[in-house]
Amino acid sequence: MTANTFGDLFAVTTFGESHGAALGVVIDGCPAGIPLSEADFLPELARRRPGQSAVTTARVEADRPELVAGVFEGRTTGMPIAVLIRNEGQRSSDYDHLRDVVRRGHADETWVRKFGVRDHRGGGRSSGRETVARVIAGVVARRVLPAEVRIVGHALRIGPHVAARFEPDSIESNTVRCADPDVAIAMERYVLELKERGDSTGGVAEVRVLNTPPNLGEPVFDKLKARLAAAWLSVGAVTGFAYGAGFDVAGMLGSDYVADRAHFGGMLGGVSTGEELRLCASIKPTTSIGDVARKGRHDPCIVPRVIPVLEAMTAIVLADCWLRDRARQRDAASSANARR
Amino acid sequence: MTANTFGDLFAVTTFGESHGAALGVVIDGCPAGIPLSEADFLPELARRRPGQSAVTTARVEADRPELVAGVFEGRTTGMPIAVLIRNEGQRSSDYDHLRDVVRRGHADETWVRKFGVRDHRGGGRSSGRETVARVIAGVVARRVLPAEVRIVGHALRIGPHVAARFEPDSIESNTVRCADPDVAIAMERYVLELKERGDSTGGVAEVRVLNTPPNLGEPVFDKLKARLAAAWLSVGAVTGFAYGAGFDVAGMLGSDYVADRAHFGGMLGGVSTGEELRLCASIKPTTSIGDVARKGRHDPCIVPRVIPVLEAMTAIVLADCWLRDRARQRDAASSANARR
Amino acid sequence: MTANTFGDLFAVTTFGESHGAALGVVIDGCPAGIPLSEADFLPELARRRPGQSAVTTARVEADRPELVAGVFEGRTTGMPIAVLIRNEGQRSSDYDHLRDVVRRGHADETWVRKFGVRDHRGGGRSSGRETVARVIAGVVARRVLPAEVRIVGHALRIGPHVAARFEPDSIESNTVRCADPDVAIAMERYVLELKERGDSTGGVAEVRVLNTPPNLGEPVFDKLKARLAAAWLSVGAVTGFAYGAGFDVAGMLGSDYVADRAHFGGMLGGVSTGEELRLCASIKPTTSIGDVARKGRHDPCIVPRVIPVLEAMTAIVLADCWLRDRARQRDAASSANARR
Amino acid sequence: MTANTFGDLFAVTTFGESHGAALGVVIDGCPAGIPLSEADFLPELARRRPGQSAVTTARVEADRPELVAGVFEGRTTGMPIAVLIRNEGQRSSDYDHLRDVVRRGHADETWVRKFGVRDHRGGGRSSGRETVARVIAGVVARRVLPAEVRIVGHALRIGPHVAARFEPDSIESNTVRCADPDVAIAMERYVLELKERGDSTGGVAEVRVLNTPPNLGEPVFDKLKARLAAAWLSVGAVTGFAYGAGFDVAGMLGSDYVADRAHFGGMLGGVSTGEELRLCASIKPTTSIGDVARKGRHDPCIVPRVIPVLEAMTAIVLADCWLRDRARQRDAASSANARR
Repeated sequence: MTANTFGDLFAVTTFGESHGAALGVVIDGCPAGIPLSEADFLPELARRRPGQSAVTTARVEADRPELVAGVFEGRTTGMPIAVLIRNEGQRSSDYDHLRDVVRRGHADETWVRKFGVRDHRGGGRSSGRETVARVIAGVVARRVLPAEVRIVGHALRIGPHVAARFEPDSIESNTVRCADPDVAIAMERYVLELKERGDSTGGVAEVRVLNTPPNLGEPVFDKLKARLAAAWLSVGAVTGFAYGAGFDVAGMLGSDYVADRAHFGGMLGGVSTGEELRLCASIKPTTSIGDVARKGRHDPCIVPRVIPVLEAMTAIVLADCWLRDRARQRDAASSANARR
Repeated sequence: MTANTFGDLFAVTTFGESHGAALGVVIDGCPAGIPLSEADFLPELARRRPGQSAVTTARVEADRPELVAGVFEGRTTGMPIAVLIRNEGQRSSDYDHLRDVVRRGHADETWVRKFGVRDHRGGGRSSGRETVARVIAGVVARRVLPAEVRIVGHALRIGPHVAARFEPDSIESNTVRCADPDVAIAMERYVLELKERGDSTGGVAEVRVLNTPPNLGEPVFDKLKARLAAAWLSVGAVTGFAYGAGFDVAGMLGSDYVADRAHFGGMLGGVSTGEELRLCASIKPTTSIGDVARKGRHDPCIVPRVIPVLEAMTAIVLADCWLRDRARQRDAASSANARR
Repeated sequence: MTANTFGDLFAVTTFGESHGAALGVVIDGCPAGIPLSEADFLPELARRRPGQSAVTTARVEADRPELVAGVFEGRTTGMPIAVLIRNEGQRSSDYDHLRDVVRRGHADETWVRKFGVRDHRGGGRSSGRETVARVIAGVVARRVLPAEVRIVGHALRIGPHVAARFEPDSIESNTVRCADPDVAIAMERYVLELKERGDSTGGVAEVRVLNTPPNLGEPVFDKLKARLAAAWLSVGAVTGFAYGAGFDVAGMLGSDYVADRAHFGGMLGGVSTGEELRLCASIKPTTSIGDVARKGRHDPCIVPRVIPVLEAMTAIVLADCWLRDRARQRDAASSANARR
Repeated sequence: MTANTFGDLFAVTTFGESHGAALGVVIDGCPAGIPLSEADFLPELARRRPGQSAVTTARVEADRPELVAGVFEGRTTGMPIAVLIRNEGQRSSDYDHLRDVVRRGHADETWVRKFGVRDHRGGGRSSGRETVARVIAGVVARRVLPAEVRIVGHALRIGPHVAARFEPDSIESNTVRCADPDVAIAMERYVLELKERGDSTGGVAEVRVLNTPPNLGEPVFDKLKARLAAAWLSVGAVTGFAYGAGFDVAGMLGSDYVADRAHFGGMLGGVSTGEELRLCASIKPTTSIGDVARKGRHDPCIVPRVIPVLEAMTAIVLADCWLRDRARQRDAASSANARR
């Protein structure tokens, strides 16, 4: 019911505006005894950070996470974990010229109508910067899950370029996070070209989860696929979600569909099978185009930056479902039964 | 947190198995004073019912809703509304041969593992029959919404056949619920052909919402698009959800994307703009194929039957968001402020 | 958020009016595999039923529970359990004279203002009859808990008469449910006397839980004592809740308080210790007095009838907390840690 | 479901340990446009602060609230409000001698068993210091409520001393927050005497709400009295809650009970009537007695300090119920009906 909290047993609350004093996250429900330190957040924050290359925005965000609660002597305590990130080096005055501008095709338009006030400084909560908090929560969520679970995101498509191979080790070695090294080169070139033209492009991000535990998801409304869809669509840039054969099922015969278990995407009846989860999202082109874009402060393609966010949201959903499945595991019933 | 409840202020709880004594729904949070009777449910139940034509299953389900609580002298009382539908004429013994069969590519597989027990009689809660309860709740949800809101679903695609026109008045005049009368004929023919071959097909269902109220959706996690995605993906047959330009954004330039507001699908920043909502879902082919299918108890294409369910889930989400937006409307703040 | 649902992992939704077609309950989150049948509900329903003696109301309610969902071949399936009780032999016309009467000091007054409609037939949802649904849920909750947990309620005080002994076996052998056989006689006499005078009396009900599992309750807001207080105060007749030394602490020295662990009531820091829980509630006198009361349709003292309801609410809270504690048990963390 | 979040539409999440880096609170659901600044928190924080007099603890806590999110140009934005309070001047090393001490009759005992780790520095989250976050949220909650609502707490009883008069203006003019100036003197003397003896005392705190809006509370489980009971019992020191005639009903005749509307405590059927709310709680004596207490770091009576916390929890409940009632106000139904 609280619009800025996601999850039930593993519940993530985010707060903070892109140009306010700080952003932060409270993670409630993390089991006690898990090792955790501020340094653990740095790799994922670095992956999300813009300005890593010419492809992404040139802004440098110094994201220094401060772990203010929930960890004692290096381990989680079972109490809410709170992490704070100060917004540094971001001058609100840079945005004064936007004070009276409601950006077309942007959250500004609806948020002003709904709330009657507007933080014109870079979008406030509607800014992509809010996702810093999600990435932090994702790091904790992965710790809750069994260690063998691997959540791997990559750029399946950017504009006309579609990856044909999946080589996970190559993902972080190119600026577009493409798992196909050859296509990555074409994608990078395309994005740079758009930057020069002051335009942007959409794409498709895919996340695969290896060693997914079975039994995740609670029918009928909290099916795993429903939870994942909600988590992913809560990310600003996402316009669609699909799993397994996804929208390709539209043209498929039933006989084709059942012929390959990969079509099921690792879920049946909304519950994980234990097989690889395969999820994808369509990512819209940024609407910051034209002169604004050419000035170099925006990404022509945000697929690479959305990937760590989608991985984080996936981890959060899986951790929540995993704790939830534990609560009602069959031995609960059988232990009670045994005594009758 | 309760897996069989959907929604917060307008909360729908469903129960019942496909071959148990009854299915039902409890709707909590409906405002008082709304006219409601058992007869109000019949048109939508009829639309959902299989066996309406050769295209859909031949089973005849006599769905007689009994309104057992929450209505007094023809109007809602503000108390939970409960509606019951008895399962009649469905002999469990028909399913005895399935007692030890775990159907491949079916919820059976994961539900047995997760719960350790199985209702082999037609799938239990994993059966499409559970959606009867959702359709009933959808009828109530539409009553909560302003009367001018219209929720219109149709078959956008079935197998290779894609609708090219949108003529809403023609939707109910063909068995596939296609809004393009010419394509409808091709779709119907295709589905009949598959039935003879004992195969099935997927498709795409679209729902458009006319006169959508603005301000629906609560950032950042309860964006309208996130709620709709969760609602739709909770339906068994749905493998993907998209809104506005959906997955087409993958190949779009930013300059193209902003050129047509229809691409935004009626939402910006996850909040409704007041414009037409445009939503679509990919629907998988049924996995009941081969001999089972030829015997005539299953749909070769469930797109037409899923449409009323997606409309219902859409109405439930909109009613919940509408009540929620009311709670914090700006006059709340201003009335409190005025006094300071 | 749904006002007619209580609990998170073990979630109870009640519906139905005292003189509508039926009352019912949906219990979501019960683990699969627990034996359950309609007959299991009868003993508790009998205990709650009025008309058992001159002390309680003379109405005869035929409460025949129908288990319509969630049980297959005698065991729970992990799906929502739904139980229905028809209201039989209760003629709405009996209440026609109340159509325009808003009863003083009664829920009628506020409910009419809030909802704008009123079910004048015996109070609708504000009637004590709604607690039938809670008692049913309590039966299921007890099955979820380890079998050795015993929840024992009794009348600690009725008017000026206070029980001095606790002999659990004697509770059901008197009409006031007093665990002190001598005081029970005085209580019974007092209640009969009030009935003749057309008056009523308040009292105190106590519930003790033997063999309470430790670790129930989740700091800081979902402490066990907070959950129990909410559960108990949701019962119409309850005006106060206390545990352990309760309101007696007001006059106690710290040195006295710590001298007897019974003062802690089985909870420390809001979490169960594993010792006996000791809870009590003040129960107001019924406001149906004077001529109405003398006509014999109302209880002069509802303490005996509230006891099974408080036991049921206690069981529901314990079952919910018990499932919740399971979700995050320490091995969750350690299993994940072990792999790091 | 999240144990450190309280409320639905007005949802308060607290985090932080007594001796960690910081405590804080996230308040989600506050309507936009309400004036709010850091200075607004100072008066209530001062009231809660220990060390104000010989009666309360001598520790000086410098509580400087930092408003890090949710306010822009002096007004709330509709986004989550986050407030942080650094723990300054509190050296963890002061607590090293407690590293292996599990304090008897203290949350330490159950929390160590449940979570398997312990923050020995002053209790961590089980410390009364956590209530700083609640007091901050209470300030915001009062702003959401209509300005005429007044929430007034006072010490009704401390040890053997019971207030006989209610003079609200005198409450803050004595160190025990007693509304009866004569009894206040006796209470103060009693508390000082106990401090010298190294003992402590319990008491009763009362909160009255003047100009309570009617219609607050949602039957049947979210009755206002149930919500208040949960809120109050979530405070560590509270062992009982009652409203109106409270536990006095136990000895009352029905004819006496209905004779004075003050007995109803401002609620009927669990919904506020619009009359004065009258609520009280029993507060246990602190268990820090003997040598520990004499050394001067603990309160011999925490009733005065709990009062601002109970006022805050009351405000939070009322704000949540007030927003919730707005969502379903009757015009919602009538506006929809009008069109039919």
